[in-house]
Amino acid sequence: MFDLYIANKNYSSWSLRPWVLMRALDIPFTEHVEPFAGGLGASRDAFRSFSPTGLVPCLVDGDTVVWDSLAIVEYAAEHWPAVWPEGKSARAWSRSACAEMHSGFNALRDDCSMNCGVRVELTAISAALQADIERLNELWEQGLNTFGGPFLAGDRFTGVDAFYAPVVFRAQTFSLPLSQPAQAYVDHMLALPALQEWYQAALQEPWREAMHEEDTVKCGRLIEDHR
Amino acid sequence: MFDLYIANKNYSSWSLRPWVLMRALDIPFTEHVEPFAGGLGASRDAFRSFSPTGLVPCLVDGDTVVWDSLAIVEYAAEHWPAVWPEGKSARAWSRSACAEMHSGFNALRDDCSMNCGVRVELTAISAALQADIERLNELWEQGLNTFGGPFLAGDRFTGVDAFYAPVVFRAQTFSLPLSQPAQAYVDHMLALPALQEWYQAALQEPWREAMHEEDTVKCGRLIEDHR
Repeated sequence: MFDLYIANKNYSSWSLRPWVLMRALDIPFTEHVEPFAGGLGASRDAFRSFSPTGLVPCLVDGDTVVWDSLAIVEYAAEHWPAVWPEGKSARAWSRSACAEMHSGFNALRDDCSMNCGVRVELTAISAALQADIERLNELWEQGLNTFGGPFLAGDRFTGVDAFYAPVVFRAQTFSLPLSQPAQAYVDHMLALPALQEWYQAALQEPWREAMHEEDTVKCGRLIEDHR
Repeated sequence: MFDLYIANKNYSSWSLRPWVLMRALDIPFTEHVEPFAGGLGASRDAFRSFSPTGLVPCLVDGDTVVWDSLAIVEYAAEHWPAVWPEGKSARAWSRSACAEMHSGFNALRDDCSMNCGVRVELTAISAALQADIERLNELWEQGLNTFGGPFLAGDRFTGVDAFYAPVVFRAQTFSLPLSQPAQAYVDHMLALPALQEWYQAALQEPWREAMHEEDTVKCGRLIEDHR
């Protein structure tokens, strides 16, 4: 049985990846929510009780500890091959896209911090953020066109959709200026039961963490708070 | 047949990962070296002719393009299962460690830029770099102790060794203050034919790229140049 340790659903984009994957694919797991405890340093110290890096998400399966979102997806894929699409080429594309998100899109991650429950009007879009948005449009359209949609790698939810689920919430929060096909993908994802379940739970969380709240309005102005 | 696009062997730590994996495991591939062309911006523009992100490494296998080092390792593993260790738990550990390097160890990567051919005396070790070195010691010792060494996940070279090969060259360049078991691992790796082949080729390269040379001495003083 999988035990998945995650942080706040409202803020923790990395936690969302394996959670939504397993929920969307009906992979059973027990969820453990450990809210951020005042700044990354304090949280990392606290999270070291279950995660060797002090980061979330972390999956525990008996004696095996899997301490990264991408490693968790691959670990799950060994048990449930449906995690990746069937075609070799679709798997290669999906893994490249997941890895690109795992180490890249820094401007998008820094300027548009995930905060599911609020809406922010971007007052400045840096050149780096603009480049990330253009790359996102290009990448998503390539997947949708190549594999037929409505998901990134074909007709069902797989690992690469899980990896871009946090971007879907960012697109909603910040009204990112996406292309029409990219926005249609966002709308399709937001309507999924697994994403809706995460979103509703995020809205109910009582915690407000100063660092994440400040990051949210780094490049914009708060216009709505649904929490 | 695999075509692997990489940048300068002297500098490109991400290129080294799939290159050394395939060389050490006797996986056949054709190498294409595309030297950095004056700053990351100019190089990314040039590299877009073969890589969708403008980043290296990029693997091309017929119609399939795999544009990230970790995705290349997983793609290779589908064809050659020896890329990962045999035990499920060793694979989970290896993938977690690879992913941790893929998105982490930022101070180590920023302060100790890979530059195989030189030796640098570190004049300042920041708290963040010290924390990265301590985590490296902890992680490597865990792998060596759990799986028996002399490689990180057991008695033969696998994907996780490929992912930490750039750190091995950094340890040599910057004389990183490692624990005794971690240093023994560095020495073992440096003696491997595949790493020696990369190192000798790096020394022979004619290119000097200003940004990488400046990054090399960001936290230290150049004391030897073997190029």
